[in-house]
Amino acid sequence: MRDPQTAARLMSREELTSQAAAVLARLRGKAPRVHCITNSVAQNFTANALLALGAVPSMTLSGEEIGAFVARSDALLVNLGTFDRERREATSIAVDAASQNGLPWVLDPVFVDRAPQRAVYARDLIFLEPKAIRLNAAEFTALADAAPDVAAVESYARARRTVVGLSGEADLIADSGRSVTIANGHSLMARVTAMGCAASAIVAGCLAVEDDALAATASAMLIVGIAGEMAAEKSQGPGSFAAAILDALYVIDAKMIAERARTGAHG
Amino acid sequence: MRDPQTAARLMSREELTSQAAAVLARLRGKAPRVHCITNSVAQNFTANALLALGAVPSMTLSGEEIGAFVARSDALLVNLGTFDRERREATSIAVDAASQNGLPWVLDPVFVDRAPQRAVYARDLIFLEPKAIRLNAAEFTALADAAPDVAAVESYARARRTVVGLSGEADLIADSGRSVTIANGHSLMARVTAMGCAASAIVAGCLAVEDDALAATASAMLIVGIAGEMAAEKSQGPGSFAAAILDALYVIDAKMIAERARTGAHG
Amino acid sequence: MRDPQTAARLMSREELTSQAAAVLARLRGKAPRVHCITNSVAQNFTANALLALGAVPSMTLSGEEIGAFVARSDALLVNLGTFDRERREATSIAVDAASQNGLPWVLDPVFVDRAPQRAVYARDLIFLEPKAIRLNAAEFTALADAAPDVAAVESYARARRTVVGLSGEADLIADSGRSVTIANGHSLMARVTAMGCAASAIVAGCLAVEDDALAATASAMLIVGIAGEMAAEKSQGPGSFAAAILDALYVIDAKMIAERARTGAHG
Repeated sequence: MRDPQTAARLMSREELTSQAAAVLARLRGKAPRVHCITNSVAQNFTANALLALGAVPSMTLSGEEIGAFVARSDALLVNLGTFDRERREATSIAVDAASQNGLPWVLDPVFVDRAPQRAVYARDLIFLEPKAIRLNAAEFTALADAAPDVAAVESYARARRTVVGLSGEADLIADSGRSVTIANGHSLMARVTAMGCAASAIVAGCLAVEDDALAATASAMLIVGIAGEMAAEKSQGPGSFAAAILDALYVIDAKMIAERARTGAHG
Repeated sequence: MRDPQTAARLMSREELTSQAAAVLARLRGKAPRVHCITNSVAQNFTANALLALGAVPSMTLSGEEIGAFVARSDALLVNLGTFDRERREATSIAVDAASQNGLPWVLDPVFVDRAPQRAVYARDLIFLEPKAIRLNAAEFTALADAAPDVAAVESYARARRTVVGLSGEADLIADSGRSVTIANGHSLMARVTAMGCAASAIVAGCLAVEDDALAATASAMLIVGIAGEMAAEKSQGPGSFAAAILDALYVIDAKMIAERARTGAHG
Repeated sequence: MRDPQTAARLMSREELTSQAAAVLARLRGKAPRVHCITNSVAQNFTANALLALGAVPSMTLSGEEIGAFVARSDALLVNLGTFDRERREATSIAVDAASQNGLPWVLDPVFVDRAPQRAVYARDLIFLEPKAIRLNAAEFTALADAAPDVAAVESYARARRTVVGLSGEADLIADSGRSVTIANGHSLMARVTAMGCAASAIVAGCLAVEDDALAATASAMLIVGIAGEMAAEKSQGPGSFAAAILDALYVIDAKMIAERARTGAHG
């Protein structure tokens, strides 16, 4: 499937795990502030995931104050999970504030495959150059008008000058010249609402402490995938799993990352 | 209390459990999409309850896109838990979309006993013919202007051509000609917010895979009641209970339903 | 640090624990209704904390009905966690309704240190005489323009004729003439979102059953701190902790309060 002419350089397992360990250590040391524009379904779990890992969330959507919050933050998440006028106004102000302050921001185009207005809006936002876009296969297809194979994802990342973090049975992360595939994670992650939203917030948290957006995005998705596997070992179903993955994000360390990371081929 | 002239036919325990097992199997097989208009207190737990059981929730309230979401869904929940302009506009569009697409919808008239405006609004919605109304005794009394005894519930269901799912120490489910009483459940269910809201969402999920609205509503309430009992056996209080009932919804099967169902007299 | 001329009288450990036990017993006996204006991040956990302890939460923000809800409640919480037009209108109506009905209300000025508009708004609200203000050190400093030492807190409480409940490694509670320091709590409490918001709601619940606002506020903060310690003993991280503290609020009793309370010096 990979065209040797255009294929991105594959990141090695060792490169990935050492970067993820370094990013995690910096995140815990700096406790970056992550402002999250996200839907009300996801707010609580997203905040708890950031806190568990060591970041500091804020979530206001008020147009009158979101600029001040973002200016005092270290990264921004824009999640389209509930798409209404208030959140679009907040997003416009927040992305401006992030740009003016040189802060990284992440787009999570939730459910762009379910309503055409969301896809239009997401495409407009992508012109404002998020550092990373984290999404699933159906959302990628709706945005990129292409099947989510390796070549399409790499090509999309290159054309939009961003990092794509595509989650699925294996995650694929690509920028304009590199890519990595992560095979960690667990099926129970799909049975807890806001798991992807929380992962996107963690991408934002990692971007706050790592300038290489591919390394930050891959680190975040690796950490979440491993935490999911650790949680599944202690769970009897999605309720206990949701608590256990927060516990896992709290205790995960470089050794667990090194032991559990699984990279591999995709597509 | 029952007038033999007008009393509804009682559904037998065997009829109930075999229907519930069949509904559960279809729900897990089809993974119906359930769009939920619900309050922000209940959104996360409601989404997790649907996911745990095997349905796929969506929750947007935006007037610009809710029609598209409902049109691509298999059932709709309208919960009055937070009652504001945005949700009323969304409800109007969503119920229209459900009607036009022949989708079942469920009304949960939360707290209609606490503010007169809600009761007025709920009565207006009931003219739009929800397939089922799930509520508690205080809410029934506020809506129906009658004590929640068997005769009143059966009469209300008949007059409104809907199914009433009245939850309480024993649940009573009635349509225009049949009724059933379910004695499952646990007192900890009243100590977790949004438990009733989640039950109503599960009624919507069951209506998505079962045309007989009484069978669907009774199946949903039986499944939730049994899951509550299973959860209580593994809990030390309402916090662990909330996680455990999601685990129970994930593992519940036909055998557990057949062993644990308790039907009986009401009122 | 304490100026013997102006220092407040210190409440003894025995006074505190016997009051907290009495407040808890009354709260469980009366199941007071607590209406909460709070942010959508905190709503679910706040409702569950109140239910776990034995109070009955409601959370509507609709201007059309919030007056009716507050009028039928026993106490009101105003939390600035998400600060938008809807919540400010709701707050205005709700505080009016509380005043007219003689109900106690609590202010939680969340994040007033992060956006100047919030601090302005919080100062305006404080003129409407909340019975108690629960906040952390950064929020106190932003509101009072003073470092959060004992003298400043006592002076602020005296000037505003309210109770200040300052949470931190040790909690300090003061009114115009008395103060108490509580050294209970656990570091995991800072890793679960809405823990402070839930504590403020519990202050409102205690004010519903105890006219002495200092006793009510100190009882609430003692109960929450002890529940946090009990929860930490059963937790593997913040996810299991969030469930365990709800379990602890459900089972905490006079004996646990008497055994575990730690009062002491502050600042």
